[in-house]
Amino acid sequence: MIEPLHSLDDLVPGQAWDLGTLALGREEVLAFASRYDPQYFHLDAEAARESLFGELVASGLHTLSAVFGHVIRSGLITGISIGGNRIDSQWPAPLRPDEEIAVRAEVAEIRPSRSGRRLGVAKMRYTARRVADGVVVLDAVVTHFLRR
Amino acid sequence: MIEPLHSLDDLVPGQAWDLGTLALGREEVLAFASRYDPQYFHLDAEAARESLFGELVASGLHTLSAVFGHVIRSGLITGISIGGNRIDSQWPAPLRPDEEIAVRAEVAEIRPSRSGRRLGVAKMRYTARRVADGVVVLDAVVTHFLRR
Repeated sequence: MIEPLHSLDDLVPGQAWDLGTLALGREEVLAFASRYDPQYFHLDAEAARESLFGELVASGLHTLSAVFGHVIRSGLITGISIGGNRIDSQWPAPLRPDEEIAVRAEVAEIRPSRSGRRLGVAKMRYTARRVADGVVVLDAVVTHFLRR
Repeated sequence: MIEPLHSLDDLVPGQAWDLGTLALGREEVLAFASRYDPQYFHLDAEAARESLFGELVASGLHTLSAVFGHVIRSGLITGISIGGNRIDSQWPAPLRPDEEIAVRAEVAEIRPSRSGRRLGVAKMRYTARRVADGVVVLDAVVTHFLRR
């Protein structure tokens, strides 16, 4: 169980949490890609053999969204999150359907509001690694607005 | 109709295309948020009144994914896109369900492979503006690998 954060002021740069694992099933990979990223290497296993990836892989937007949903459901920041306005996301390696990935959250930067308001900005880095080989498939820095 | 690109070498920095409009219906906003961004201001119209947004708004990940899907379906880069590995996305203003947004694509940067390989990197900037008031709700720079 993750202990939920109660304030932006609870956060310290470098602090990190392992948030457990998840996998994206083939059905969900295909459904997401059909709607949001209809490229052949996300939709058609046969055609994907001729792609750069050599096989069907999840849309990076799907990996990002699923990891973000996992983070929110972990409860870590849910009680103090009031929004966000930026994500810088990289996908160093592809993710195949049904591959288990481990999610980690780390505090990258904290900026309390100078005006004494009851909120501030936290940059959180979310990474996902394939459990089988440790390869990073997602490295995303999210700018959150959090309560103090 | 958009003329599909045939090669990375067709692209010139600053070149831009208007790719039409889209809207995210309330059902889809709720469905996406349930799975990928279950925060109350994306899920519960009543509770969202007390949020920073003052009303229910779409998840930024949903706006990004829907605009990306729209770009792919436009056919602009679909014939030459072989993957991508980075997105830097900002959401300067929120998007409400059923609000029409206009999507624009612009060539931000081109880096043909120096090794003479048949691919290169293109950074494309995708923006979405609310049609009603011109406010930008998404400003995303996507790093694509494109065929030459």
